[in-house]
Amino acid sequence: MRSNTIIFSNKPKIIATGTIAGPKECRGVVGKYVDKALIEDTFGESTYEKAECKMLSFAIAKAIKNAGLKETEMDLLISGDLLNQIISASFAARDFEFPFLGVYGACSTMAESMAIAAAFINAGYYKKIVAATGSHFSSAERQYRYPLELGNTRPPQSQWTVTGAGGCVISDMGAANSQTDGISITSATFGKVVDYGITDVNNMGAAMAPSACSTILQHLRDMGRKADYYDLIVTGDLGALGSRILKDLTWEKGVDIQKNHVDCGEIIYNVIEDEFQGGSGAGCSAVVFNSYIMDKIKKRELNKVLFVATGALLSTVSSGQGESIPCISHAVAIENV
Amino acid sequence: MRSNTIIFSNKPKIIATGTIAGPKECRGVVGKYVDKALIEDTFGESTYEKAECKMLSFAIAKAIKNAGLKETEMDLLISGDLLNQIISASFAARDFEFPFLGVYGACSTMAESMAIAAAFINAGYYKKIVAATGSHFSSAERQYRYPLELGNTRPPQSQWTVTGAGGCVISDMGAANSQTDGISITSATFGKVVDYGITDVNNMGAAMAPSACSTILQHLRDMGRKADYYDLIVTGDLGALGSRILKDLTWEKGVDIQKNHVDCGEIIYNVIEDEFQGGSGAGCSAVVFNSYIMDKIKKRELNKVLFVATGALLSTVSSGQGESIPCISHAVAIENV
Repeated sequence: MRSNTIIFSNKPKIIATGTIAGPKECRGVVGKYVDKALIEDTFGESTYEKAECKMLSFAIAKAIKNAGLKETEMDLLISGDLLNQIISASFAARDFEFPFLGVYGACSTMAESMAIAAAFINAGYYKKIVAATGSHFSSAERQYRYPLELGNTRPPQSQWTVTGAGGCVISDMGAANSQTDGISITSATFGKVVDYGITDVNNMGAAMAPSACSTILQHLRDMGRKADYYDLIVTGDLGALGSRILKDLTWEKGVDIQKNHVDCGEIIYNVIEDEFQGGSGAGCSAVVFNSYIMDKIKKRELNKVLFVATGALLSTVSSGQGESIPCISHAVAIENV
Repeated sequence: MRSNTIIFSNKPKIIATGTIAGPKECRGVVGKYVDKALIEDTFGESTYEKAECKMLSFAIAKAIKNAGLKETEMDLLISGDLLNQIISASFAARDFEFPFLGVYGACSTMAESMAIAAAFINAGYYKKIVAATGSHFSSAERQYRYPLELGNTRPPQSQWTVTGAGGCVISDMGAANSQTDGISITSATFGKVVDYGITDVNNMGAAMAPSACSTILQHLRDMGRKADYYDLIVTGDLGALGSRILKDLTWEKGVDIQKNHVDCGEIIYNVIEDEFQGGSGAGCSAVVFNSYIMDKIKKRELNKVLFVATGALLSTVSSGQGESIPCISHAVAIENV
């Protein structure tokens, strides 16, 4: 079987991150790790879409600043988001004077953009790239589901789109900041589209879990590793139910991730009111990885992490036309070397 | 000034293309070059979105077949399209067993996906990648503008979204097929987002021309080349008006592309009924480049081509919220070496 995994022998470094999250999110685990905790989720803007764009722009600028770099030193922005025509990323890119590469992987965007960035840095094409994404509960809700004013109830298998954005600077050389010294992206696995026929748009966890399973197994096979090589296998936004399904699916294939797996969606909210299975959205894994998880990597509480962001590639049109939900997961291995 | 251009010293090859276009398109210049000319634009499907997806899937499979390869020999698909959440690309990817990298660059997608593919091949990460995109007049019209049933009249500055798809296989080694032997991607320039404040969604050419100008000038500067280095500088889908604006803008900067510039949108339709400024859509440059232009490169009537696909990064929401249209253009240099 062919390998889908790129090994980065030059070990591109993650030298800084920038994160921002909404009030609800900041009551949870990421609250004390994000660069900015929003008091109100409009971020001073007149629409939720503009707020989402402003958060993403903030995360990009903050990551660059935290890296001790100037915008003129940056080579490329790789970004995407959930909104139609990725307007958050495109409009955020307008704020910066360096080139932009737009990607779409739904909630897998953080890993996808990091993987491309690492591939470009490793090859020596560029020296400094920002990878970033974000999402907003209210813009996602009204685009994908119902007008907020309807006050629809949500089924128990549903997740709550995270209001937040996160990004990181990936570099050919380590940072002056010794905290991130040695944090490298050592390999990346681009996933295949996997569709198990789930049509329930409220059950993203069930739809995405088989794709996470596919990419994790592919990565471990390509690298000749057992699951316990990693201190943590952290998935994108499967939520609590999706995370349980993933553990079952990998177990059936003889791979045990019971002890070292956690899902960003599962852990982001402390209290469950209407969030049910937890967080989702491109911002979910972007915020959790770039704040909470990266903090643990910096402190060397975690030294080998497989970050597997998961995406559901549906649209309201595809669902309306009776289609099931194709999903994709991309994996990035981050190691203290 | 920093270089935004990647030079591909290993010269990734374009070993085959696959193209398909609708009936209106096939009455024009691409008619005798495409692999499949559709008799009816639904391609046997029940919705225009499904027809768009099927065309893209056809172009991908055909490119692989024309390369004399099997699907199991392919490493990666890089694709995107204009529909919300790039469902054509995501659902087309479901038809194939190899990994998928989703991108969004509106009508710049063909150049963007070729550039990433060439970068990955040049670095030795993969051996065979398909880059592809497409669009459909009827799915675009009802998503971006008005229901078709309204029969709205169109202003004279407007363009007509191309029904068609195109893709190419980019490879580390030349093909058995001697026709494409030596056709290489020698460099690529990722563009910056450029926004001159145009808010007229019917005037994409005017919105995108400054971005095409920016990327072309950047490319020539980075490579230390004059415009006449290229036999042809072919832009994405500026249309007739946009093409004239581009010539003026480059002229003002002291770069003369009067003699060696043509725009895919400008040339795709023979007769002007309601197409006015010509073709647009991600499928426009994908079909024209991968059929008509590639035929001329194969026959060595063209030996040095700069392919600059142009994209307008708006959405109905961004326009509805009063935003102007940020645009981006990515350039890929294709040479007979």
